[in-house]
Amino acid sequence: MQLNELETPVLVLDRTRMDRNIARLRERLAPFGVALRPHVKTNKSADVARRLGPPGTPITVSTLKEAEYFLDHGWTDILYAVGIVPSKLPHVERLARRGARLTLILDNAKAAAATHAYALDHGLRLPVLIEIDTDGHRSGVKPEDPVLLDIAARLSGREGEGAWAAGVLTHAGDSYNCRSTEAIVAMAEQERAGAVRAAQRLREAGHAAPVVSVGSTPTAHFARSLDGVTEVRAGVFVFFDLVMNGLGVCRTDDIALSVLCTVIGHQEEKGWLITDAGWMAMSRDRGTARQPVDQGYGLVCDLEGKPLQDLIMVDANQEHGIIRHRADPAATPMLPVGTLLRILPNHACATAAQHGAYAVVAADTGVEAHWPRFGGW
Amino acid sequence: MQLNELETPVLVLDRTRMDRNIARLRERLAPFGVALRPHVKTNKSADVARRLGPPGTPITVSTLKEAEYFLDHGWTDILYAVGIVPSKLPHVERLARRGARLTLILDNAKAAAATHAYALDHGLRLPVLIEIDTDGHRSGVKPEDPVLLDIAARLSGREGEGAWAAGVLTHAGDSYNCRSTEAIVAMAEQERAGAVRAAQRLREAGHAAPVVSVGSTPTAHFARSLDGVTEVRAGVFVFFDLVMNGLGVCRTDDIALSVLCTVIGHQEEKGWLITDAGWMAMSRDRGTARQPVDQGYGLVCDLEGKPLQDLIMVDANQEHGIIRHRADPAATPMLPVGTLLRILPNHACATAAQHGAYAVVAADTGVEAHWPRFGGW
Repeated sequence: MQLNELETPVLVLDRTRMDRNIARLRERLAPFGVALRPHVKTNKSADVARRLGPPGTPITVSTLKEAEYFLDHGWTDILYAVGIVPSKLPHVERLARRGARLTLILDNAKAAAATHAYALDHGLRLPVLIEIDTDGHRSGVKPEDPVLLDIAARLSGREGEGAWAAGVLTHAGDSYNCRSTEAIVAMAEQERAGAVRAAQRLREAGHAAPVVSVGSTPTAHFARSLDGVTEVRAGVFVFFDLVMNGLGVCRTDDIALSVLCTVIGHQEEKGWLITDAGWMAMSRDRGTARQPVDQGYGLVCDLEGKPLQDLIMVDANQEHGIIRHRADPAATPMLPVGTLLRILPNHACATAAQHGAYAVVAADTGVEAHWPRFGGW
Repeated sequence: MQLNELETPVLVLDRTRMDRNIARLRERLAPFGVALRPHVKTNKSADVARRLGPPGTPITVSTLKEAEYFLDHGWTDILYAVGIVPSKLPHVERLARRGARLTLILDNAKAAAATHAYALDHGLRLPVLIEIDTDGHRSGVKPEDPVLLDIAARLSGREGEGAWAAGVLTHAGDSYNCRSTEAIVAMAEQERAGAVRAAQRLREAGHAAPVVSVGSTPTAHFARSLDGVTEVRAGVFVFFDLVMNGLGVCRTDDIALSVLCTVIGHQEEKGWLITDAGWMAMSRDRGTARQPVDQGYGLVCDLEGKPLQDLIMVDANQEHGIIRHRADPAATPMLPVGTLLRILPNHACATAAQHGAYAVVAADTGVEAHWPRFGGW
């Protein structure tokens, strides 16, 4: 089957680009001697995850449903990288009883005490990483915050007894807001140094804290030192997207995801092509709006995946996309009704989440497989 | 089961509010003597659609998969309200052969000619509405555009022979950008008058054009005249959302959808509550950003659905939400880890699309049902 035989819109995955992206990060990290623990929240697919390594490979997940799905497919070394709350511990227990070696994270004493108590009560051994805030972006305690040791004190000091302080985790999500390579390099060092410092404080207080987990796709690609780090997490690197392109982390022809759509009409006087891929197919993510080059809802390519000069998806309704020349509406080519186009997304995680499967292509527009993905919680 | 027994995040549907919203639009339209053809793209659920009427009720869909799903559940009078392209006609045919009375729309001569030729070749009788652009918002031909008659001329002039010009359809999507009730009233009249004028032109050219289909939730609620209109379409009215609230179409306590989430941490010095409902649970829709009151990613309510004064979801990561007082971070109450909250969404269609089911409540926080929804194409 060929791409032009599919009913649009459909999510297309270029396996050749994906495999190249995966190899690139593996090669980059190899000299540092750190483990890669890919974040599968971007792909939510065992078929994609298998390209990252066999089911023995450590992975990161963003929901317990992801943990469950990947456990069902043979993965066991799973880091759940959203702060645990007591109400989710029974679900954690079910997964642990089924053979998952789940690592949890948290950033407050209440969750620590509840998790340890639950683990002791139910005979579970749960490694816990304390979340560190190295960039002011989201969750976590500051590396120098006194509460770090309070949290650790609520956990077990030793592996094998309840919930134990296995180390620290941080995510420099603010790297997405960097405006230069130098800024990403600096952010990567800030991420590393903050995590290592927090781990050092835990160790000085008597905790083993063997794990120092850091990561984001930009910092993973630009870190100059990973001294003291034991593992790197990243998810978007597998597919890349226009936000990563805008950050200088990838080229547009590294982007492995696109949404295939059909021109369904025109508004010629406005220079608009109307397509059947709206925000339902692309997501509402407008991540490039804050970057120097705003790509609208996506950059338009031909059926083969080659960008069409300066055509972007400027607006979206639920099942309608509006494509126009980015600067000069009169320069939009009035492509005939029925023309197939592929739109590169702003944000791979968000766009992929709108679809139930990937149509996989490799060397050309032949569809070599349909890989299902899951969603929900 | 009670809401507080569910694993978060979860989409909650208040059936009492929904039933009231449905009754309200029915009662409003009754004196006008027009049919209501609800748009089921918002709910994508046979359980919700049954509250709108039995399967004999006419419906509007945004994808052929929706048509197929509702056909499977007994609905047959189905308007597919996205411009048809020739490549989708085999799918249309399959649905027609299974008993669907599908109405199509289009806005260009190429699609008209191809649809009529296909229908003749395959012995199909397909009513077609010509899409009219009454607000410059999206697709369609202007009511006075000469091309309107060119398009009609490519269709059959009579019912029962191929694809025939059954009338016109318009959607005043720009009503979402109105800033006053008066503006919505004016937009409703512009929508009505443009559609009726286009139908009149078709009739003057010898087409029967019995159908004049208009609609959007704001214009359906504020139209003062529907003279010449035969049916009204609307979708969001079933659930409502913060965009509709910002337009003055509903109150916050009419909003029937919310996302139940759990406080998982704090950043106290910033006045942040961190929750487990991020953009994956809410969608990336920021529809209120352009309104006088920006609600961020949503308005925060307690477990019972009562808004907490001026708490909004100010930012979102994939599985993390950030809640803060909208004006004064220091005024954010540091609700304990584990607290359950419900977030009212900006855009019902977009938020619901992120979920696979509704947890249905009525008088209190008891869950009376789980209604599945579908997605994809």
